[in-house]
Amino acid sequence: MTDTIKVTKVAESKISDVDFSKLSFGTVFTDHMFVCEYENGAWKKPEIVPYGPISMDPSAKVFHYGQAVFEGMKAYKDDNGKIFMFRPEENFNRINKSSERLAMPAFEKDYFFDGLNTLLNLESDWIKPGNDNSLYLRPFVIATENGVSASPSSKYKFIIICAPAQAYYSGEVKVLFADQYSRSADGGVGFAKAAGNYAAQFYPTELAKKRGYQQVVWTDANTHEYLEEAGTMNVFFRVGDKLLTAPTSDRILDGITRKSLIELAKSEGIDVEVRPVKVSEIVEAAENGTLKEMFGAGTAAVISPICGFTHKDKEFDLPKLEDAYGARLKQHLTSLQANRAEDPFGWRYEVPSMTV
Amino acid sequence: MTDTIKVTKVAESKISDVDFSKLSFGTVFTDHMFVCEYENGAWKKPEIVPYGPISMDPSAKVFHYGQAVFEGMKAYKDDNGKIFMFRPEENFNRINKSSERLAMPAFEKDYFFDGLNTLLNLESDWIKPGNDNSLYLRPFVIATENGVSASPSSKYKFIIICAPAQAYYSGEVKVLFADQYSRSADGGVGFAKAAGNYAAQFYPTELAKKRGYQQVVWTDANTHEYLEEAGTMNVFFRVGDKLLTAPTSDRILDGITRKSLIELAKSEGIDVEVRPVKVSEIVEAAENGTLKEMFGAGTAAVISPICGFTHKDKEFDLPKLEDAYGARLKQHLTSLQANRAEDPFGWRYEVPSMTV
Ligand SMILES: Cc1ncc(COP(=O)(O)O)c(C=O)c1O
Ligand SMILES: Cc1ncc(COP(=O)(O)O)c(C=O)c1O
Repeated sequence: MTDTIKVTKVAESKISDVDFSKLSFGTVFTDHMFVCEYENGAWKKPEIVPYGPISMDPSAKVFHYGQAVFEGMKAYKDDNGKIFMFRPEENFNRINKSSERLAMPAFEKDYFFDGLNTLLNLESDWIKPGNDNSLYLRPFVIATENGVSASPSSKYKFIIICAPAQAYYSGEVKVLFADQYSRSADGGVGFAKAAGNYAAQFYPTELAKKRGYQQVVWTDANTHEYLEEAGTMNVFFRVGDKLLTAPTSDRILDGITRKSLIELAKSEGIDVEVRPVKVSEIVEAAENGTLKEMFGAGTAAVISPICGFTHKDKEFDLPKLEDAYGARLKQHLTSLQANRAEDPFGWRYEVPSMTV
Repeated sequence: MTDTIKVTKVAESKISDVDFSKLSFGTVFTDHMFVCEYENGAWKKPEIVPYGPISMDPSAKVFHYGQAVFEGMKAYKDDNGKIFMFRPEENFNRINKSSERLAMPAFEKDYFFDGLNTLLNLESDWIKPGNDNSLYLRPFVIATENGVSASPSSKYKFIIICAPAQAYYSGEVKVLFADQYSRSADGGVGFAKAAGNYAAQFYPTELAKKRGYQQVVWTDANTHEYLEEAGTMNVFFRVGDKLLTAPTSDRILDGITRKSLIELAKSEGIDVEVRPVKVSEIVEAAENGTLKEMFGAGTAAVISPICGFTHKDKEFDLPKLEDAYGARLKQHLTSLQANRAEDPFGWRYEVPSMTV
């Protein structure tokens, strides 16, 4: 491995300063990071170096034109100390899809996997066993060419940073259905994990927070009649015993949690329908009592149950269920991810153990 | 002035290394830059420092969530050595509007003007006289808080960098009318100078370039029936002797060149109509010979004449006019900007001379 990647280790780990029982999501990073530079049309030899600041010219294109994409993935450890990732090939394919839409170069598959595997071996102590613990992995690519002419950069940095994470209990989540602001346009970049998509959501989400909602559920920009996705999650609705979720499109991120839950739910015998979900049918289902659950699905929180929603000033509460699909699927999925349940799908990826 | 701003000068200027007759837009920067940091809810005392790299944590929010906005403005010098900016208050207001939409803090007016004035006095030698020469000014704001949770940053940097510019002759510009990709959604961030808007345009623009077009003219995302704006310019159409341009909206940047040209053209007795411009009417006008001109309008190029366009594989050429509105308005506007023509509008802002 180490002949493709140059590794420079820290003199001393900072792990003893970290209280793993009090982690706030995405704020503490491990000792090392993976860095690979793109120049003259090619990715250069990657390196793993001590985590630390990078030097950027103030004219770097990422600052001015937002050429930046990212991924979010997790590594888990089982009780035997083996490390696993969940469907990492999906993240690899998706970051390249995102990059393509932003006129950025595709990354190399070998570098992606060798980089992650080496980094995870190096940071193994940062991954605690148990379904609730994980190491959040953040690969991202930024445009580093200097100059403010509005055209694609010729230089990039591909970086992976890692943050230890605990289960993410978001508490009672109430959401607002968007009826004015929107997240993405047809023919736009909503399907890409493009940095700019997130900044665009912050202001309407802050407005919603002031009104007591933790998240906005985005609707289609043209009509606001279809429910699409939440800030950093896809959304599922349970009406009666049926699970509904919107199909992906060029406006909606093709979430790996979403697509895994669809298969997992089906394998459990749940009736899943992937089709456009109308605001009006969910409002109606809430009114007639058939709306039983609503939840967000994404890597960070896995499943985030939603306890109520508001549409055009009308508030609806969801029932508290004993046998919620959300809770059951989350338990199933996280057990599978952490090698505590069977994996008939072949989703788990075991990180090869190596001496770094 | 220098009691509000701390100034640290370079030991030696690099100006003698610069060939002012061969400037490529936005690639050479002056000796100094203005930097102001936001923390704990307030902008701190600004500084002017030697132009150079900034140190960023790899988890800085700008890299992950695209919280970044910018402005583009120009300074001109007249034959007496006086320095002028053009409607700088408009840029100040607009960057704060952009920031608000991206959940970023408004900047301080005093800091903006004191910063620009001090910087321009310091970099006076970099501004060459003549309508065709200018100093391009790039104020921008980036989110600098460390951490990858998807929420607005609590820390920012406001920076101004300056690049000497010559007249920008884009050559023959042919454009493609968008009929698939789109730039912004209703309820989105198209009206903001948000970094992410630009990266989103690169890929469709590169596709257009491969087909021989320099720019895409964006249409509304819902129907692709209305012409909205070009990559970094608003667009004008001359049908018969009437000048048409789309109204601003939450999808369209409220360009300062655009609004100035509307007034300037009216003052010259040109009939200007600000109203939605249909693709079909422009195609029809091209077919019946009443479409006389099309041009882009923006700070960088001021006016960029368009010599042809393609809509759904149908190509149209525009006539070469002797008495083009575009050429006449450009001459008028740049003369006004550089203090070589009357300014009945009060648009010119004279930079107070000071010892820095
Ligand atoms: C906008 C958006 N939707 C959905 C998701 C869920 O995707 P995944 O399940 O792959 O994490 C994410 C990322 O976490 C996201 O950013
Ligand atoms: C998208 C877009 N439209 C239009 C313009 C023109 O605006 P202004 O005339 O203020 O430079 C710009 C900026 O230059 C732009 O980025």
